[in-house]
Parts: sequence; structure tokens; C-alpha cells
Amino acid sequence: MAQTEEFLAAARDALGERGLTTDPELLQPWLTDWRGRFTGKALALASPGSTEEVSQLMKLCTRFGIPIVPQGGNSGMSGGATPDDTGHAVLLSLRRMNAIRRVDADAKEAVCEAGVILQTLHEAADKEQLRFPLTLGGKGSATVGGLIATNAGGSQVLRHGSMRAQVLGIEAVLADGSVFDALVPLKKDNRGFDLKQMLIGSEGTLGIVTAATLRLLPAVAERSVLWIGLGDVRDTRKLFLHADRMAGDALEAFEILPRHSLEAVLKHTPDARSPLQGDHEWHVLIELIADAAGADALPDLAQNLLESAFEAGLVEDATIAANETQAEQFWTLRDEISPAERALGPAMQHDISVPVARMADFVAEAVPLVEQKFPGCTGIAFGHLGDGNVHFHVLSPPGSERGTWEAGEGKKISAFVHDLVTRWDGSISAEHGIGQLKVDELGRLGDPVHLHMMRAVKQALDPNGLLNPGKLVPPCA
Amino acid sequence: MAQTEEFLAAARDALGERGLTTDPELLQPWLTDWRGRFTGKALALASPGSTEEVSQLMKLCTRFGIPIVPQGGNSGMSGGATPDDTGHAVLLSLRRMNAIRRVDADAKEAVCEAGVILQTLHEAADKEQLRFPLTLGGKGSATVGGLIATNAGGSQVLRHGSMRAQVLGIEAVLADGSVFDALVPLKKDNRGFDLKQMLIGSEGTLGIVTAATLRLLPAVAERSVLWIGLGDVRDTRKLFLHADRMAGDALEAFEILPRHSLEAVLKHTPDARSPLQGDHEWHVLIELIADAAGADALPDLAQNLLESAFEAGLVEDATIAANETQAEQFWTLRDEISPAERALGPAMQHDISVPVARMADFVAEAVPLVEQKFPGCTGIAFGHLGDGNVHFHVLSPPGSERGTWEAGEGKKISAFVHDLVTRWDGSISAEHGIGQLKVDELGRLGDPVHLHMMRAVKQALDPNGLLNPGKLVPPCA
Repeated sequence: MAQTEEFLAAARDALGERGLTTDPELLQPWLTDWRGRFTGKALALASPGSTEEVSQLMKLCTRFGIPIVPQGGNSGMSGGATPDDTGHAVLLSLRRMNAIRRVDADAKEAVCEAGVILQTLHEAADKEQLRFPLTLGGKGSATVGGLIATNAGGSQVLRHGSMRAQVLGIEAVLADGSVFDALVPLKKDNRGFDLKQMLIGSEGTLGIVTAATLRLLPAVAERSVLWIGLGDVRDTRKLFLHADRMAGDALEAFEILPRHSLEAVLKHTPDARSPLQGDHEWHVLIELIADAAGADALPDLAQNLLESAFEAGLVEDATIAANETQAEQFWTLRDEISPAERALGPAMQHDISVPVARMADFVAEAVPLVEQKFPGCTGIAFGHLGDGNVHFHVLSPPGSERGTWEAGEGKKISAFVHDLVTRWDGSISAEHGIGQLKVDELGRLGDPVHLHMMRAVKQALDPNGLLNPGKLVPPCA
Repeated sequence: MAQTEEFLAAARDALGERGLTTDPELLQPWLTDWRGRFTGKALALASPGSTEEVSQLMKLCTRFGIPIVPQGGNSGMSGGATPDDTGHAVLLSLRRMNAIRRVDADAKEAVCEAGVILQTLHEAADKEQLRFPLTLGGKGSATVGGLIATNAGGSQVLRHGSMRAQVLGIEAVLADGSVFDALVPLKKDNRGFDLKQMLIGSEGTLGIVTAATLRLLPAVAERSVLWIGLGDVRDTRKLFLHADRMAGDALEAFEILPRHSLEAVLKHTPDARSPLQGDHEWHVLIELIADAAGADALPDLAQNLLESAFEAGLVEDATIAANETQAEQFWTLRDEISPAERALGPAMQHDISVPVARMADFVAEAVPLVEQKFPGCTGIAFGHLGDGNVHFHVLSPPGSERGTWEAGEGKKISAFVHDLVTRWDGSISAEHGIGQLKVDELGRLGDPVHLHMMRAVKQALDPNGLLNPGKLVPPCA
């Protein structure tokens, strides 16, 4: 392993003492993904302090043939930032590159290094009476680089799009160590292929995002949070169309919860209360927002929306949060579904999408299908109906042993769900990415033409296969 | 040429009599770009009637090594759809594939074949009380496929983005004849590289767009068109920020005109009248729009915007169009600049962008610089200030002979302007693309890392270089 020692010495020279460690104790926390599904090994943990240092490290990796696994907050959902167990790769942490280089309130943009934590960006925008229109559960750990590499979603995609839509400019280190600099945002630029978009969502397999220029929006001046009970999941689609027509751009979120999820949250979360008195098979959480100009009109809009929905027979019961505290309580009921369901026992979780118009029908069909095919299991679909994206969880029969069930029936359930989604022209990964979790399923179910194009692009831009190997791009069969 | 004859016979078999011609008279109109700058030759004109036929043709091209030049309405600005003069290529017209397969008013989507003309799409959307939010001068000829291939811009980019932002799904034939099918739109899909975005704006060099799913928006219920006179181009930026803050999403267009352009239009266009009494160095056209929900509030918004701009000392004079007829007249003054300037004599035209925040400063610096460096010339910048994109024309000294001047001083002027834009971190092609017109300049001024990536992707997806050769991707030096 003289080669490896030579690489480590050269990398230490390039990055300095702070920038490289092989200490097992320092590496250990970053070798397992946060859901605890994957554990790997690494030659070293590199923590460069600048784009130039990332570039130097990448050049060394290419020279010595060392694979490199980029990592942000290590809070991804698909094991995309965890190395394999060969120990050949260097783990690249971007966390030291955490400067917000610039916030321009007039231009409504922020230039962030890859290691900036989402929460920090929110706070920086807030200081300028602006906001960054993407948020998610892991905002205290997720980094800008990781959000870009995985094209993260969250609960504001409905109106503002996923991370892809927030990226105005990008800087990345490519496989040969060269720096792709497209940080300066041009609203119009037709000089060729959109290389920026290709890097977004590529999970570190085409390049390492080191910085980005992100768009900011005016701060929200007013919001209305509505809670609605309905009898049939298909009515959620009708309600969505109604809300979209009435509220237009004011419609910020449209989330659905089945009775099962609400009950689980009420049981699991201290002080949680149901917003409505009666029982309903389905619940919808709607958020309407307005900037300063539209703030006065918002309460009337919320009221009118509900009244007309009642008149049209679209809802069974409904209420509007009386104040911010109550609005937060409504959102807590939504945000606590995952931990509450987890407490009920082993479950297979699927992050899936189908065309927006068909998601309610999909849920109506898929839940009984799964429960019929796998007796004793419970199918639960909740989340971003307005994006055509639900989290489709299948709970194991009571008393199942996690390891055995997940590896046995669980695996069959996931294959069944993914097959079904594929038949509905949907995606087996709506917002969590492919990583190593779903790379086999993508190889099994992906369109051959898509896969061929992906492999060709990967081969072209990373001919030695050093950038995050084993992730996202399924190998040829 | 037995090979060529064999190819033609096989292509005729695949496409039928309607689908292939070698008749020089039928080819002739499509061998010159509409600005008359480029004329080429072609082996044949192929007009397939379906995606399957395009696929078969492409397979034959690959088998026989025949280059293929896709063409939509032949109204591009950069010669991207005109073959070279070797006569080796087959010219592929998508115009027969002109079906709107589906308009879904609920989902607000239209599925169009590549040959659908923009105007036809507008009319189809209109019937459903919807609109397609992209328009431009050539809407009577430009096709959906061409608009996608060139990532077309126009006057609604400010709020809605360029063509890239309107494409929800895409279908394309790749170099090996396989069909890339991503027509079904998923709002969230993280299954790998965004291949759709890579095809958009690739000018037929990576694949042939055969169909697309496009987004529609609610129809405009009300608009207000404002005309404003100012003394200094830098004040247009201040006015833009003011309008953006006050109007937010209602701000649909923000266009600037210098005194020179307005005078040229008034002289050239019958019955044209200046909206304001006095003289101003600069003029701004603002359009505010509202859907049904916001229609009532719009007149007040327009009035308040102007009054506060007056109070802040941002404008010299201003008026609001009293009715639709007047609104159209204001827009005619903007739309007639190009023909009016053309009537004044030879000019070098540059479609350039810089970061939005810096465009007013750029104009303030670039115009005197050019006029000083090239005595007798007149620099004129007009257009989409809100997008950081102006059309920067440099008029020849009076009495210049077109051919001589364009090939001599004109060429130097363009190089000077492109150098300047590059120093300002801008783009030498904001919305018109590269085609064959600017491919040398892109090779000269493009970032080497960008060019390297483009070439690698091109080589990976079109290894034989048959897809629209000579366009967009500069060859290695």
C-alpha cells in the first residue's frame, strides 16, 4: 500500500493537518448514514477549506485512482453519502466550507459554499426580510451542497419547485480536478447544454458541488393554515383543483393525511390534539401565504375557499388556524407522522410520485391492493398530494421482527410497490434520490434508454469511475 | 454514390412518398435561414409523420453515416437549422408532426408534437381559458420543437422563464434511433441526471425533439401597460427594483428603449405616436397583469406604482394605457424596433446578457465605449432589462456599404462587444442560441472547462457526430 501512503501524504500536504485525518474515532460518525441502514469504511476523511483544495484533492484522487465520496450533513435518505465497505475511498466532507459569501437583497440571491447548513441560510435570508423557499425536516443538518446533489424536495415544492428551481448558479469540481465555474447567475444564457442542471441531482457522481448562487424570495407577511376532513381520498384531488383555482399563487402547501396517520400522531405526540371534532377518513392541510402587498386579503381568501368548498360538497368539516401557535400545531401533526408511524413497528417506506392528476386515484387503488396481497399489513399514504408525491408506507403485521420481516416480506412489498408505480408512469424516487438504497431497483425498472444515456454521460465525465462509485447510476446488467 | 442511393431508397421506404423528396424546388425554400445569412445544400428533405418514422430515419442515418439537420419553422436567428454546403446531410423537417395530442385544462398541460406552431398552441390554450406563457415575434412560424431546441426566450421570460421552464415532459429521438420517452410529467422525480434539461437548448446536437408536454397557466384577466420616460439608463434599474417590490408576481414585462429606437420607430411605422409629450433619453414599457382573482386591484396597483415612482424621483414622465388599443400601440413601439433600426442601414446585432443587476451599468458603459472605439457608429441597447438581456445593435456610419462594412469593421465590432460582455461575466447568446452564427465566437471566448464538458457529452451521446454537425459545439482548437 505504498501508493495509498503516498496519496495520503500528498493529500495532507495539499489540505493541511485540519484538512485530512485517518483517525478512526473522527471518521466513525460519518461512516453510517443517519437512518442506520448503511455502514462503510474509508481511507481517510478529507475536510478541505476551499474550492481550490477540493480541486487539488480531486487531482490527487485521479492520479492515484482513489474513489471519492462527497458528504454534506450526512442526513440523506438513500445512503448516497456513505462509502462502500472496501475502505478504498476517501470520504470528502464539505462541512468546513460553510461561508455565506454574499447575500444581495436587491438581486434576491445568496452565494453559499457547499457546507452552509439550510437553517443558517434561512436565518441569513430572514435578516434581509427575505426567505429561501425550501425547507425540510433535516434543516438543522442538511447542507446546500447535499441539497443540490440530491435535488431535495420538502413541503414548499408545490409553489416554488424543488432545489433545482432555487439554484441560479453553481460551482463544482469535476473528475479531473478542474473547476466548473457557473456561479454568476444569468437569467438568460443560451450558450449550449445546461451543464448546471445536469450536476443538480447527480448525487456527486458527475462532480462535487462546492458553492452555489441561490434565489431568495420576499418574506412571507401573512399565512393561513387550514385543516380539512374528507371521506374519500379522491375528493382530495377535487379539493386541490378547487384550491388551486381560487388561490393560485397563494397556495403554498397541500398535504394529505389518512386517518391512520393522524391517530398515530395523536397517540405518539404529547399534547397533540385533532383540529376537528369528528372522525374523517382523510385530512388535508392547506397553507395559503401572502407577501406584504396581499396580506390584508388573505383571511377573506381562506374563508371563501372553505365556504365554497363546503357548498360544493367537497369537504366534511374544516377549520382555519386561529393564530400562529395553532398554525404550528397543525403543521406538527403533519411533520410528526414519520416518527409516529415508526413507533408502531417495522415498515417499508416508499418515496414515490405519479403524475399529479393521478395521485389520489393511485392511493385509492394501491392501498387495498397492497393490503390484499400482503395480509396483515397496513398501507399508509401521506404527504405532498399537490406534487403528485406521497410517502407510501407499508406497516408490518403486528409482532413482526424487524430484521427478518424487512429482508423477507418487506423486500417483496417494495418490489410490488415499485412495479405498481412504474406501471402508473411514476417514479420510485420522488425526492429522496437513488443513492445506494435504490440503485438496484433503478437498474431493474429504469427505462433502458434513460439508463443508457445516464451511463454514457457518467462515462464521459468520470471515465475512471472515481466520483461516488456505486451510487445512482446502475451498472450494466 | 451507390451508398447514398441506397440510403435514399431505404429512407423512402421508411417514410413513404410524402415523407421524402429530393426535388430541388421543394428543398430550396428551406436551405436558407430566414435572415438570409446562411445557405446550404441537402441530400434530401425528410418530412416524417410520426416519432416512429423519425426513429427509423435516424437509424438509417447512423447505418449509412448520413448527417441530419433538424428544422422546425426555419425562423431561428443563428442558422442552427441550415445545413452546410457539402450537400451530405439530410434536412429533417418536423413540420408534418403538428398534432396537439391533448390539452388537459385541469392539469394545465398540453402535449404537442414538435411541429405545432406557437400561434396554434396559443389558440388551443385560449379555448380552455388558459395561456401558454411564452411568445415572440416569430410565433406564426416558430414550432414547439424549435422553441425547445433553442430554449427560446421572448418578452414573458421575466416572470415565467424561458422555454426551458415551460417544458414538463419531452420525447426525443437519439443518435442511435432510440426514443427517449419522458413525456409523462412528474413534478418530482429524482431518478438520476435531468436528461430532459440537457436536451432543451441543445439545438438538435444531442437528439431530435419529437414531442413535449408543456405547462399552461390561467388566462390573463386584466393587464395594465405603462410607458415611462427617464433621463439616465441607470435609473431604469432603480425603477425595475421599485416595480418589482411593489408589483411582485404581477410584473409581467419590463422593457427599455433608448431615444434613438423610439425615434426610429416613429419615423418608420405608419400612425405610430409617442405615448409622452416631451423628450426623454430612455423609455420603459412595463406590463402588469392579473388573473381573475386579482383583476379588480390592478388599476390601483398601476396607479400607485407610478405615483410612488414620481415621488421617489425615479421618472421624468409616465402614462398608463387607457385601454387595450392603446396598450397594443405601446407594445407595437417596442416590437417595431428591429425593423425600424434595420431600415436605417447596416448594423451589427448582439443578443447579450449580463447579470440582471448589472445590465443598466453595462449599457451606460458599453454604448460610449463602442462609439468612441468605432467613430461614426451608433450604439443602441433595447429590450429585456428585467432579464439582464438587451439587444445591442451597432449601426454603421451613414453611407456604409453593407457587405464590405459587415465583413470588415462590423466583424471587429462584434468581437469587441463579445469581449466586453465576457469581461462582465455575461453571455454572447442570451436567447438566440449559437447555431453556426456564433460557434466560432463560443470557441474563442467560452470557458475551457464548459467547452470540455460540452464536447464530452456530445461525444458520448452522438459518437459519430451526425446530429446537426457544425452547430453549437465548437470543435477542439
